[in-house]
Amino acid sequence: MKHLLTLDKLPRADLETLLDRAQAFADGAQAPQALSGIAVCTLFFEPSTRTRLSFQLAAQRLGAHVLGFDASTSSATKGETDLDTFRTIEAMGVRGFVVRHKVDGAVEALAEAAKPGVALLNAGDGRSAHPTQGLLDMLTLRQAKGRDFSKLKVLIVGDVKHSRVARSDLHALRTLGAGEIRVCGPQSLLPDDGTLQGCTVTQDFDAALDGVDAVMMLRIQRERMEDGLIASLDEYHRDYGLTAARLRRAAPDAVVMHPGPMNRGVEITDEVADGPQSLVLRQVANGVSVRMAALEALLAR
Amino acid sequence: MKHLLTLDKLPRADLETLLDRAQAFADGAQAPQALSGIAVCTLFFEPSTRTRLSFQLAAQRLGAHVLGFDASTSSATKGETDLDTFRTIEAMGVRGFVVRHKVDGAVEALAEAAKPGVALLNAGDGRSAHPTQGLLDMLTLRQAKGRDFSKLKVLIVGDVKHSRVARSDLHALRTLGAGEIRVCGPQSLLPDDGTLQGCTVTQDFDAALDGVDAVMMLRIQRERMEDGLIASLDEYHRDYGLTAARLRRAAPDAVVMHPGPMNRGVEITDEVADGPQSLVLRQVANGVSVRMAALEALLAR
Amino acid sequence: MKHLLTLDKLPRADLETLLDRAQAFADGAQAPQALSGIAVCTLFFEPSTRTRLSFQLAAQRLGAHVLGFDASTSSATKGETDLDTFRTIEAMGVRGFVVRHKVDGAVEALAEAAKPGVALLNAGDGRSAHPTQGLLDMLTLRQAKGRDFSKLKVLIVGDVKHSRVARSDLHALRTLGAGEIRVCGPQSLLPDDGTLQGCTVTQDFDAALDGVDAVMMLRIQRERMEDGLIASLDEYHRDYGLTAARLRRAAPDAVVMHPGPMNRGVEITDEVADGPQSLVLRQVANGVSVRMAALEALLAR
Repeated sequence: MKHLLTLDKLPRADLETLLDRAQAFADGAQAPQALSGIAVCTLFFEPSTRTRLSFQLAAQRLGAHVLGFDASTSSATKGETDLDTFRTIEAMGVRGFVVRHKVDGAVEALAEAAKPGVALLNAGDGRSAHPTQGLLDMLTLRQAKGRDFSKLKVLIVGDVKHSRVARSDLHALRTLGAGEIRVCGPQSLLPDDGTLQGCTVTQDFDAALDGVDAVMMLRIQRERMEDGLIASLDEYHRDYGLTAARLRRAAPDAVVMHPGPMNRGVEITDEVADGPQSLVLRQVANGVSVRMAALEALLAR
Repeated sequence: MKHLLTLDKLPRADLETLLDRAQAFADGAQAPQALSGIAVCTLFFEPSTRTRLSFQLAAQRLGAHVLGFDASTSSATKGETDLDTFRTIEAMGVRGFVVRHKVDGAVEALAEAAKPGVALLNAGDGRSAHPTQGLLDMLTLRQAKGRDFSKLKVLIVGDVKHSRVARSDLHALRTLGAGEIRVCGPQSLLPDDGTLQGCTVTQDFDAALDGVDAVMMLRIQRERMEDGLIASLDEYHRDYGLTAARLRRAAPDAVVMHPGPMNRGVEITDEVADGPQSLVLRQVANGVSVRMAALEALLAR
Repeated sequence: MKHLLTLDKLPRADLETLLDRAQAFADGAQAPQALSGIAVCTLFFEPSTRTRLSFQLAAQRLGAHVLGFDASTSSATKGETDLDTFRTIEAMGVRGFVVRHKVDGAVEALAEAAKPGVALLNAGDGRSAHPTQGLLDMLTLRQAKGRDFSKLKVLIVGDVKHSRVARSDLHALRTLGAGEIRVCGPQSLLPDDGTLQGCTVTQDFDAALDGVDAVMMLRIQRERMEDGLIASLDEYHRDYGLTAARLRRAAPDAVVMHPGPMNRGVEITDEVADGPQSLVLRQVANGVSVRMAALEALLAR
């Protein structure tokens, strides 16, 4: 593995190796010298404080020097191309790049230009992929439900069409052999391009919840209302908001996940977000472990 | 001590222990491994570069990993609640939080939600408290005037009503048994809520200066003019600006303090700010030592 | 050497000592403890991500604690003077300051106020000086053409009038005894103040290129068009853009340099920027080595 751009073609063995190492970090393993003397840059063409902090913390725990470059600030790059920005920081001797970009495929394009020995980690590109989010979701699911996913019924709910989180989750769930993948959301927010191949798709949230072991909620962007893709947040909440009452349709020990930040009162209620079945904060914690595993796998000598 | 939120109820022994340790750091003591492997986040819901840098430097000198989160930048949190922002970073494994917030009590509210082993340091909330500023002011005063405050006459001048610095100074001066605390400022900028209990209060700056050992000037915010609380900065300077001529009314060896940043020519003249009685830069230096002591006390194993 | 403010009066021996040490770092020398426990602040009154990152990386590789202060963000300093901002951070115990400022001489003014033991590195002031850029350009030239500059013909092209890069290059090229220095650009962008003393000056780019060993392109700022100093970027490109065809007028082994960020298609074409004679990325790499050498020379015990 040279880069971590997507979970799409990642073989099951590689994915499980990453999860095993991440679990070791979650259990307290340390490697404070693993990236000693190695510089890692968080290069964000689209801002995201949470993901940036999580990667920064992971890199620091491995002993790396961490640099931040918020390329979304206009003056930063004075009109130079993204490729020149990347090559410039690469020329400084930075070995690891954590890159977020609003354009699909932009991170992969930079990775193709990278010198040997330089590794890119996709921290989210367009609606395509967010592989470390997919990995942390799998780690969280595995901790809650065990390593055998073949009997699991997993439901993904919301704006799958625009969600790189959903795509990376789908890639990983398929690779790990999830028993059943259900997808639920308003027709306008479901992709029609093969993304959902093999999934059970419905617009009926109540029906979709029936007996599932895990509910993965997605964040609804306010912009979808402005785009006319949903009528209102109220209506969205009525049809696709996860309430305690609705959650009772799932298996009694079903777990609830959300990539954050949550729109409380819209896609999820306080009662569910803070309830005993919520793994939202566990996901965040696992994020650091998964990113440590990925950085180590790509960059440690 | 689990958190450092206010000096209000801090027992004298605890306060003096912190000051003693801060003095040791000021004298050159080092503890470069004290927070080794521990992550500290400066979580600022209201921007402040000076205070953030001072805490960052203190944490780095103790070997911590330091993360910065400027939550005042709107896109950072995408509308999630402050509590969710805090809990998210806490879930990443961050152990120390240096928090500034414009709302009174907001830092305390987050502290109440913190997990065991996680410590919050209030870097200023609303007009309530700025405990490390109070500590550094006491350390500065102690260096200049000795440990026995019982004979000291201390004067606080300016916008006490809106000042968390003044409140933390008042808390600490009382705890340390200052001989006399005088407070001076325009009526519109003096609190009428019990804050000044036990203080000698006046609007006459010249009279207030008579024979004092220390003058603690406060920064006047330009907004007070817009709020109609002061007529103009010129008039404020005429009535409450500390000039060299005025300073001669104080004791000959009186010291002058200011939390910065200074409005030169308004609450203080260049001659005084840069004069031999000014301890302004000593305060800044002591700020790092005090913050090292506080971080160590709360977070070192 | 107490500070690094300009290359103007730097003796040749000092300049070559810095270049030799930078070359050692470029060749893989390490000094991870050289600045251990020392704090370095990048204090930028004018934003520049590239230069800031390069200095940050250099300081980290020497083991320094690095702090960033973007003083161009208005709220940061709340109207205090630059000198107070500097003195405040200095009082915190920061030993090294990497300062950029849009006003000529502003960095020197701060250096004059600095305490003993505190070192300033000019990261660019006004149009006056950018000494580490001058150093890295010399290192790059030396790697390509050898240490003896006496036979070299070097051409500097573009907006020399407003360029601190050009001034620092001119200082260094003279000190190192460059054989011939040619300067070329539109009359409106050439200085008339003695800067070009001893240079061969022309407005004819094609003639200027004849037989040169190195072409140092400068970035053209869009603002020059708004100022009326150039008619259009198209016309600028026609007259002063370096194309592959034009480059054939130079010596066959001539090298091409540019301080970045490049305006591709304006002062330089893709073919040249990415061609075999371009040393643009080598310059960036050398920047880190040169800054390590300068920081070490000024701050290591």
